[in-house]
This record gives sequence, structure tokens and C-alpha cells, in this order.
Amino acid sequence: MNFKKKYKRTVKKNNTYLCVGLDSDLERLPDCLKNEKNPMKKFNKEIIEATKDLVCAYKPNSAFYESAGKIGFKAWESLNEQIGEDIPVIADVKRGDIGNTARHYAKSLFELNCFDGATSNPYMGWDAIEPFMKYEGKYLFVLAITSNSSAKDFEYHHELYKLVAEKVSSWNKRINNRLGLVTGATKPEELKDIRKICKDEILLIPGIGTQGGEVEKTMKYGQGETHPNMIINVARSIIFASSGKDFAEKARAKAIEYKKMFNKFI
Amino acid sequence: MNFKKKYKRTVKKNNTYLCVGLDSDLERLPDCLKNEKNPMKKFNKEIIEATKDLVCAYKPNSAFYESAGKIGFKAWESLNEQIGEDIPVIADVKRGDIGNTARHYAKSLFELNCFDGATSNPYMGWDAIEPFMKYEGKYLFVLAITSNSSAKDFEYHHELYKLVAEKVSSWNKRINNRLGLVTGATKPEELKDIRKICKDEILLIPGIGTQGGEVEKTMKYGQGETHPNMIINVARSIIFASSGKDFAEKARAKAIEYKKMFNKFI
Repeated sequence: MNFKKKYKRTVKKNNTYLCVGLDSDLERLPDCLKNEKNPMKKFNKEIIEATKDLVCAYKPNSAFYESAGKIGFKAWESLNEQIGEDIPVIADVKRGDIGNTARHYAKSLFELNCFDGATSNPYMGWDAIEPFMKYEGKYLFVLAITSNSSAKDFEYHHELYKLVAEKVSSWNKRINNRLGLVTGATKPEELKDIRKICKDEILLIPGIGTQGGEVEKTMKYGQGETHPNMIINVARSIIFASSGKDFAEKARAKAIEYKKMFNKFI
Repeated sequence: MNFKKKYKRTVKKNNTYLCVGLDSDLERLPDCLKNEKNPMKKFNKEIIEATKDLVCAYKPNSAFYESAGKIGFKAWESLNEQIGEDIPVIADVKRGDIGNTARHYAKSLFELNCFDGATSNPYMGWDAIEPFMKYEGKYLFVLAITSNSSAKDFEYHHELYKLVAEKVSSWNKRINNRLGLVTGATKPEELKDIRKICKDEILLIPGIGTQGGEVEKTMKYGQGETHPNMIINVARSIIFASSGKDFAEKARAKAIEYKKMFNKFI
């Protein structure tokens, strides 16, 4: 099933816009998992089990898997099977390279693994995006405005983030609307600008939780024309809510809190 | 030994500015390697053996390793040992993410593996670069102007690539000059602009060979003030010079050709 259908079906079924960021940093896993053969894999299994009726998507970030060597490689490979067919999985990899190389990144994410979508860095332009679009039904979230403070270094340069939104909107006409945008919740005014340009694209919104993004404004400015079309990511505040044996239980409680917090504004 | 020392020593010893791109695409490896336990690892070993006195650096691109699953993972892990201590190895990964995440990419490249340098995407600004700089002596090449045709989509937006060069030059003052730039050989005029701003940074220059970059202008405009400070990458035209049993021999012949071609202009 294609990304958009799967996303909309999950939103409807679970009544939620929450995405759990599976940034399962090996250094921060609960002590009770230390003797597991693969602590990351076990951690993900428990977190998924505890939250799968509360989310519209999962988003693992590749950095945490790459820094864990073989354990991370195996945990990354297992994600799609662990999450199952019903919930979309977005590989947060922020890749971007020339065409022939980008084709290999796309192969890794969509053939070797079966992720439903991924994130992409726009710096190199369309060439870096096109190879991902050869995979029918897959969806790509292009960085527009990011949640970090040094976003100002380049993203604001003559409103570069708006140009990214304009290009994405124009590319979408030729590829059946399979591009969305990443827009940090720490920048609600810019989110408003972006929604003026990309009226109905799906927005992937990180920055709520540890990073301190503003929930009310994000919910107010982020919703699309025909559907909210938002995926609001929360990672550390949920998955590391407790470092004890009750980590999955506490993650579930936090996820319920965030789900409700977002739904108040829909 | 730190990147810059190792680079300069290798340039002197081998009298060369050639970097061989170890983009060892599993789909394109010579048939004679098909029965090897790990064809990529064997291929790299042979290519390194055949070219190590002709290069100033090696540059493997992670995309080709990620698309080869477990074989790729193991070949990637083996690169530093195969190349040895004397020649700098640049992990061409073009990563870029917020601080906490970037820290994990840096850990993967500089702790789990022992790459001497890496490439980085500037879109998210300084936050995405800083965690790599915590590793003493490591060097990061930031994308400025890339060799692909859609570089025009964003890199030319109000001369964004010049702003990247300006920021790199100013950041270098506080981190002991450990940032260089990626500048595609298909854009010699822009290379000239960049050298006006970054007079002595090391430039990593892809785009010669299959991509059709201009050698003479690149060599004329690319050289730094106190040292050429160029690393000119050639990948496919060298490593896939032959698909027969003589692949390593033919790669060596091509590498000699490129080395001489570049040295004519030094």
C-alpha cells in the first residue's frame, strides 16, 4: 500500500497525528536490557508494542543505528518487520547525493529494507530526489526549516526555505504529490509561510518535547486544506520517559499525553 | 596523525593530487569476483593494492556500501584496515543533522571506524558540523558547489555557495582550519569564486572522468595559496576501467594517466 493511503488509514484508525521517533540510542537504553543479545532490537519491540495504537507513523533516525555498529545494523534491518504492514515507517536519513549515488541510497531504503518513506536534504536539488521517486508509492520529506538554532546559517538566506517549499510544490505536480516537507515545531511562523505555499503536502514536524517546540501554534498553522496532513514527531520525551523496567509502560503514558495534546487542536 | 599532515605527507611522497573514489558498486564488480565470500572487500583490496602509490587519498561513498546490505557493511568496516595508516581516507557520507544526532554520525565515522575525514551537507548550519569537530585532527569537507546539473536549484540561490564558503572560512578561524569544501569540477568559474574566499582550505573536487569536468580550468583555478591543497576525485573511470580479470591492472593504468594529467598543471 502506498505511503499516503497507509498514513491516512492509520490516522483514522488510531485518531492521532503522533509519530514516535525510534532514536534508540544504545548509550541510553534501560539497564534491564543490557543482557539482551540485541538490546536495541528488544527496546524497539517493546516500544512499538506499547505505542502502536497511538501513532500515525514511526520515524527511526539512522544516526543512532550507525553509531551502534553491528547491533545497530541488525536493529535497523528488523524495524519494518517489527512494526508490520499497517503503520508507515519513515527512515530519517536526510540523504542527498548525485543521481547515480542517490539511486543506491534509494535501493538500500526501499528494496533491501521496506521503509514507506524517508527524509531528504534538498541542497543538491532535484537530482538527489528523483531516484527515490522511481519507487511507486514511496514518499519523501524534504528538509525546509529545521528545528535547530543554526538553521539561520543558510535556511533563511534570502528565504531559502520558502524556495524549497515552492520547488517541492512544483515538483509534486509531475510526480503525483509524493513529496512532503520537514518543518521544525520550534519555528511556527515559518511553518505558516510554508503552509501558504504547500497547502496540502504532508508535513513531518519534529521539535516538540526535548527541543521545546510550540504545540498550539504548530497545530494552528500546520494543518493542510483537505486533511490535517501532519506527522508530529516526538522521540526522546517518549522513548526515554523512564530508564527503569517500566520504560515501555511510561512511554505509553507519555504517548497518550502527546496524542491528546495534539488532538485538542484538530 | 591528523588529516592535514597525513594528506600533505602523502602528496609529497606520491607526488599526486589524485583521489580514487572507492564507489565499489556491487552490481558492477567484475565477474571474476562473483565467487568471493565478500566480492566488495576483495575488489577494494585489489584496487588499493594497485593504486596506493598513485593517490593522495581514498574516498569511499557510503551509498554503495549501504545498498549492498551485509556485504557492504563488512566491506565498509574493513576499509581503514585495508588502506592502512599512511593514506587519508575520506568517508563520503554527506551527512547533516541536529547536534545530538550529528554526534552519533561522528561517532560512527571517527570512533567505530577510523576515517580521517568526511563530507558534510551544510543545509542545517553549524550545529550539524560542530560534533565532528570534537574529534581532534579530523577534517570535514562541506558541500559548496556540487557537480550535478540540478545544483542550480538551490546552490545558486542568491549565491548560496559563496555564503557557504564565507561561513566555512569564518568557522575555520575558531577550529584550527579543519574544514574544507567540496567543489565540482564541472563548475570551474564557481571554483574560482570559492578560491577567492577560501584561499588555503583543502578542496575536494569530484566530477572529473565520467561526469565530464574540465581538467585544465580546475587545475588553474583550484590551487591554494601556500600549497595546491586539492584532492581530485576520480571514481568510475578508474575502478571500472575494465570488467575483466585485469581490472586492477587497468585501474592502475588509468590512475597513472590521471595523476600525470593533473601534475602537468601544478
